[in-house]
Amino acid sequence: MKVSELGELGLIDLLARMVAEATRPVHQKERPFPLLVGIGDDAAAWRSREATELFTTDTLVEGVHFLPDKASWWELGWKAMAVNLSDIAAMGGTPLYALVTLALSDDTEVEAIQECYQGMFEACRQYDAAIVGGDVVRSPTLLLTVALTGVTWGSPLLRSKAAPGDLVAVTGTLGNSAGGLQTLLRGLPLHPRAARTLRDAHLRPIPRIAEGKALAASGVRCAIDVSDGLVDDLAKVCQASAVAATVEAERIPVHPSLKEAFPQEHLQLALSGGEDYELLFTAPPAVMEQAIPQLPAGATIIGKVHPGDPGQVAVVDRHGQSLPISRGGWDHFRR
Amino acid sequence: MKVSELGELGLIDLLARMVAEATRPVHQKERPFPLLVGIGDDAAAWRSREATELFTTDTLVEGVHFLPDKASWWELGWKAMAVNLSDIAAMGGTPLYALVTLALSDDTEVEAIQECYQGMFEACRQYDAAIVGGDVVRSPTLLLTVALTGVTWGSPLLRSKAAPGDLVAVTGTLGNSAGGLQTLLRGLPLHPRAARTLRDAHLRPIPRIAEGKALAASGVRCAIDVSDGLVDDLAKVCQASAVAATVEAERIPVHPSLKEAFPQEHLQLALSGGEDYELLFTAPPAVMEQAIPQLPAGATIIGKVHPGDPGQVAVVDRHGQSLPISRGGWDHFRR
Repeated sequence: MKVSELGELGLIDLLARMVAEATRPVHQKERPFPLLVGIGDDAAAWRSREATELFTTDTLVEGVHFLPDKASWWELGWKAMAVNLSDIAAMGGTPLYALVTLALSDDTEVEAIQECYQGMFEACRQYDAAIVGGDVVRSPTLLLTVALTGVTWGSPLLRSKAAPGDLVAVTGTLGNSAGGLQTLLRGLPLHPRAARTLRDAHLRPIPRIAEGKALAASGVRCAIDVSDGLVDDLAKVCQASAVAATVEAERIPVHPSLKEAFPQEHLQLALSGGEDYELLFTAPPAVMEQAIPQLPAGATIIGKVHPGDPGQVAVVDRHGQSLPISRGGWDHFRR
Repeated sequence: MKVSELGELGLIDLLARMVAEATRPVHQKERPFPLLVGIGDDAAAWRSREATELFTTDTLVEGVHFLPDKASWWELGWKAMAVNLSDIAAMGGTPLYALVTLALSDDTEVEAIQECYQGMFEACRQYDAAIVGGDVVRSPTLLLTVALTGVTWGSPLLRSKAAPGDLVAVTGTLGNSAGGLQTLLRGLPLHPRAARTLRDAHLRPIPRIAEGKALAASGVRCAIDVSDGLVDDLAKVCQASAVAATVEAERIPVHPSLKEAFPQEHLQLALSGGEDYELLFTAPPAVMEQAIPQLPAGATIIGKVHPGDPGQVAVVDRHGQSLPISRGGWDHFRR
């Protein structure tokens, strides 16, 4: 069977099951740095005597995750680092050290690569991470892979910790990144400020490191970063936690620029656009009340967790009527 | 300037200098898990309260690092993991956890990917590592990137610790991997056993984990794994340690199968072939005497370290006459 027939999600699911199976003995055996979280969360995690260590990787591919004529090299570097920082944020962690693998063709300009590294350095500087090595390889296609370690001294935020009775909340606003991508692709005639807001959301995402740490410190136990889209990512949380969730469409935080630019589509972009890198989290109401005021980016309660088919997510209007939702999400192998 | 004009080594050198510059504040600042070794060794290293942690990454690219019709998918998986394990071995470390990034086209067979993972699992099983996550992305070119962590409870083996008076030694034999590549490319009519030995050396390299740990435990402080070729890798040690070294050609350990298959070229293959993944190490004579008997793969003393132009490596015959050496080494951007 070809990968195209199975699809990206099918392939990831298959490999995840293989890896989980092969890793079982590691969980069962006494070993230094025992594994706490394997495949299936925002980052892997293991315990050391002093902390829980985190480990994640993410790749950007030319023509798949970015269009070379729509983003600067600096932005490409920033984004490659930021999406990895976001995974550490979604575990409530503090980033530490990064390795960078750059696969590029031999007609790439050296100055472009330097600019790309400057973008990565700036993201590292702002979030106190450091590049400590990597690899440069020749490849017809440009790929930029970052592997990043981090640490948390408390309990990591996990996808599997949502419980019935929890509220669902999200930092910042949703849909701007997808709106920015549409703006770049379609060349929409927007007000420059709105265009800038949406474009930046897509090309210079902000990893919510301070927010993730504040959530963990406030007793929140469950989070994910919104990379595939609100509905898809909430479904992953519900699947991992064996619960269901309902989101109220009217509560979803949407930026005024997105409403202005996409009067018809802004809700759909917010629900399934993806790449917002906001933190989506759940907690009992009392914990939520403590946690939200601690978040520099703010957060909005958008729904609740309840018993139901594991992984099921409903979006309802103000009358409690279910809205039809396309599960959107990105599948890079199915087009 | 294009990357092709600068060359792979030039680009790596440029990026290494940029990274070292950007990382300087990280070395100067008090932070959790202080950085011990940044860019420029086999792995990055930082200190935790209980140990020194290690972090490395390596990528195999289709058509550059492997030829899809010459290696099985299992072997590709094995090798991708083994070359990373070898970097941990070269630091004297114990491997821990791996993230795997697989970039592939959508017409790849799912069964091939499963076989590739089986090769990685087997390498993990033999050396007590575990795959704990990763990423699958669409790409016209197949790339397989592994990022691997490890740990050492003693002092890591560093490239920068060679000192005048040290002897130079290497585990196993050299040149078989390059001989195996030549055998595969040219379809040489070898005795099946010799062909198998050389082919396996190229496609199923053995990371010297036990040897690296034994070296560190025996008081050896300086090692590198032979990935680019003996002369090139010894030059890196000498550069990092600000010393020079002389190797006696006749002492270089060469496998009988390599001599048989390449009666004229075996020495050149052993000197600059690369991808042997043996450990090249230096130590004072007394330490060497203690260390070598501890090594399961054995080791051979091949030369000595002395004052001289930093990075200079001479290869001499039995009369002490310098042999002309091509610095070989792989430069994937210059062809």
